[in-house]
Amino acid sequence: MRDLLPEEAERLTYIISKARETAALYGYKEVITPVVEPLELLAAKAGEEIRQRMFIFEDMGGRKVALRPEFTASIARLATTTLRNEPKPLRTLSVGSVYRYDEPQKGRYREFWQADFEVIGSSKPEADAEVILLANNLLKNVGLKGYALKLGHVGVVRNLLTQEGVDEKTQNAVLQRMDKKEYDAAFALVSSVKCQTVLRGLLELKGKSSVETVQNLCNYVKAYPKSLEAAQYLASVLKLVTDSGCEVETVDPAFARGLEYYTGVIFELYVPELDMALGGGGRYDKLIEVFGGEPTPATGMAAGIDRIVIATQAQQTKLQKQAFKRVAIVPIKEELKSEALKIAQMLRDAGLPVEFEVMGRKMAKALEDADKRKMEYVIIVGERELKEGKVVVKDLAKRTQSDVEIKDLKEKVSK
Amino acid sequence: MRDLLPEEAERLTYIISKARETAALYGYKEVITPVVEPLELLAAKAGEEIRQRMFIFEDMGGRKVALRPEFTASIARLATTTLRNEPKPLRTLSVGSVYRYDEPQKGRYREFWQADFEVIGSSKPEADAEVILLANNLLKNVGLKGYALKLGHVGVVRNLLTQEGVDEKTQNAVLQRMDKKEYDAAFALVSSVKCQTVLRGLLELKGKSSVETVQNLCNYVKAYPKSLEAAQYLASVLKLVTDSGCEVETVDPAFARGLEYYTGVIFELYVPELDMALGGGGRYDKLIEVFGGEPTPATGMAAGIDRIVIATQAQQTKLQKQAFKRVAIVPIKEELKSEALKIAQMLRDAGLPVEFEVMGRKMAKALEDADKRKMEYVIIVGERELKEGKVVVKDLAKRTQSDVEIKDLKEKVSK
Repeated sequence: MRDLLPEEAERLTYIISKARETAALYGYKEVITPVVEPLELLAAKAGEEIRQRMFIFEDMGGRKVALRPEFTASIARLATTTLRNEPKPLRTLSVGSVYRYDEPQKGRYREFWQADFEVIGSSKPEADAEVILLANNLLKNVGLKGYALKLGHVGVVRNLLTQEGVDEKTQNAVLQRMDKKEYDAAFALVSSVKCQTVLRGLLELKGKSSVETVQNLCNYVKAYPKSLEAAQYLASVLKLVTDSGCEVETVDPAFARGLEYYTGVIFELYVPELDMALGGGGRYDKLIEVFGGEPTPATGMAAGIDRIVIATQAQQTKLQKQAFKRVAIVPIKEELKSEALKIAQMLRDAGLPVEFEVMGRKMAKALEDADKRKMEYVIIVGERELKEGKVVVKDLAKRTQSDVEIKDLKEKVSK
Repeated sequence: MRDLLPEEAERLTYIISKARETAALYGYKEVITPVVEPLELLAAKAGEEIRQRMFIFEDMGGRKVALRPEFTASIARLATTTLRNEPKPLRTLSVGSVYRYDEPQKGRYREFWQADFEVIGSSKPEADAEVILLANNLLKNVGLKGYALKLGHVGVVRNLLTQEGVDEKTQNAVLQRMDKKEYDAAFALVSSVKCQTVLRGLLELKGKSSVETVQNLCNYVKAYPKSLEAAQYLASVLKLVTDSGCEVETVDPAFARGLEYYTGVIFELYVPELDMALGGGGRYDKLIEVFGGEPTPATGMAAGIDRIVIATQAQQTKLQKQAFKRVAIVPIKEELKSEALKIAQMLRDAGLPVEFEVMGRKMAKALEDADKRKMEYVIIVGERELKEGKVVVKDLAKRTQSDVEIKDLKEKVSK
């Protein structure tokens, strides 16, 4: 696990604040669930790969617990317990760190950050569209450019396999491999050669546009009524999303994602600068009942905050934050510390950041340090000036200094 | 561990945002360290009680690790490694969850939230004062009333015990007990009756003001030069803090805190509504070298976010947030979903939150739901109005409705 130093931490918390703003625009309310949850909850429908990569331990009561590898299981638990009786749809936001035991590499960390959005209770394409539009809006609000959406529907492959008599466990394994684009290995898990051929055909349906690809898909799976239904559902989500002005770059008929609980439309978002999804999600209509709830349709998505950080760094995205001048304040001697602290406090009360000289250094040393820290102004509190209600303000860039009345100080150091 | 539902989660994230704002005003930069750290790092100077209450497990590499019980050890690690060469003082903010195995009760949870502020590199009273003023300002910025500061200096008791020949391990045990106000048990750990008497005398030094208490303390420990030095240091911090307009309600000569690493001035903050500190901290001049760094003076404090949440609930503190109208948008039929989504997107682009009807309900049901959710406006998207560039806006409080031009919609639903 890694440390995030100020520049990176600032980007991360900035993107989290944008996730909160975006969530609010769509009516998603934040809930906070524990980092540690019972293993059986987290393992239930996570999928083999994630199950093997969980941080598992025993708590002091001897129960098997784990660090959450994602948020959806915790939200599903909430939806079947505390929030059981809330009116549907239930829209939630979760923000925090999640954990997977992985070989660390750029964009893939053992502790990483997600903003997770879930909408629970709706089986309609407009719910899928909402989550996709929200994801798209988040990247827009962060200030990213050139991001692209990829859309699919796991029901196409699953229903096709079901109709061909392939059991669910094998289906899971096939989708796991497809997620990694190991198509040969994926299709080899299916014994029927006919079925293998049909699956392979999915890889070649790409049309000139997303709409055409979905059309090709619908034609292709006509002999599989449930797969056709899935493809048509995908078409209606695609329509809602594109009608809302959000472009869908790719529809991928063979698209799969790592988590086992997906049952419907799935999607991911990319930027050209990074070879990994910045976020993604999909529909999971069977998960809530696994946790003992009523059968409840649901869809959601997780944004990978760390990867969005990397993308903003690659694109040199500026953070839209109020920029303050960097101001230091130094008392000229011991006895003036209280006076200097009071002036610092006054500026802070006015919302202006000030760094107080807490090292007790002589003026020359303190100024040298202020230079090193790229301070813009140094306020020097001296006896003579104080008697006239003034302080000295040094402009480090211009290498000038002037006496400033304390009452005018706020204005002086804020521009 | 517990879940925080929207009302509580909103307060918690609000207070965290105030902690970030306050940190910025004092020049503290946020860093993010892992929730999981090596056990030996976290256990080094945490104190017996906290050591026994850590969530410890083995990671997949077989190393003993634990969930952090606090932030200071992680920051001390950073200060001796990655940030070793940064100019001093180093001012850091950390925000996140920490973990202690405790019997859950109000204000005490196994997973709880801290905002942790550290200033590393200064041995001066102004650094202690800065941290105390920052803590005080945080509670002010959150909007709390009637909070009170308690101040002490662990060096008074430690130096007294050292001069009396009491070893460090026993000193730790004495302070642990004193922290719990088990004074009889604490003093009984010391074999010398004379020393017991001197310790007991500390409990009776209370003057009519904080200044008088410190004065009494200085007189009382005159025979213990190092304790006297500590008391005088405390006096100078007290002066800086009160000169800056921050009242110190109590100076407690027998004040101790649970963590073993404190070496100097310590403090806590209280509100009358809660029988637990909302936050506290102190000086720890020996910790950095324990982790292999140069001897480096340091001081810091942690704000207990969950307890501040409870305090704001008890005081019914209003969150200073922009309040938006609650707006739902409902298409009158299937075919108008895209149009309605477009209108929702337009409002969101203007910064206005809208909840879209994703349940596909008939109008009557959707309106009933909007009532239940305490929506203020429902925008109804119908064919006839759309043709005229209009929608219907229902004011649920006034029970009125009117046609509104889409271009005027933003203004209409934002007031």
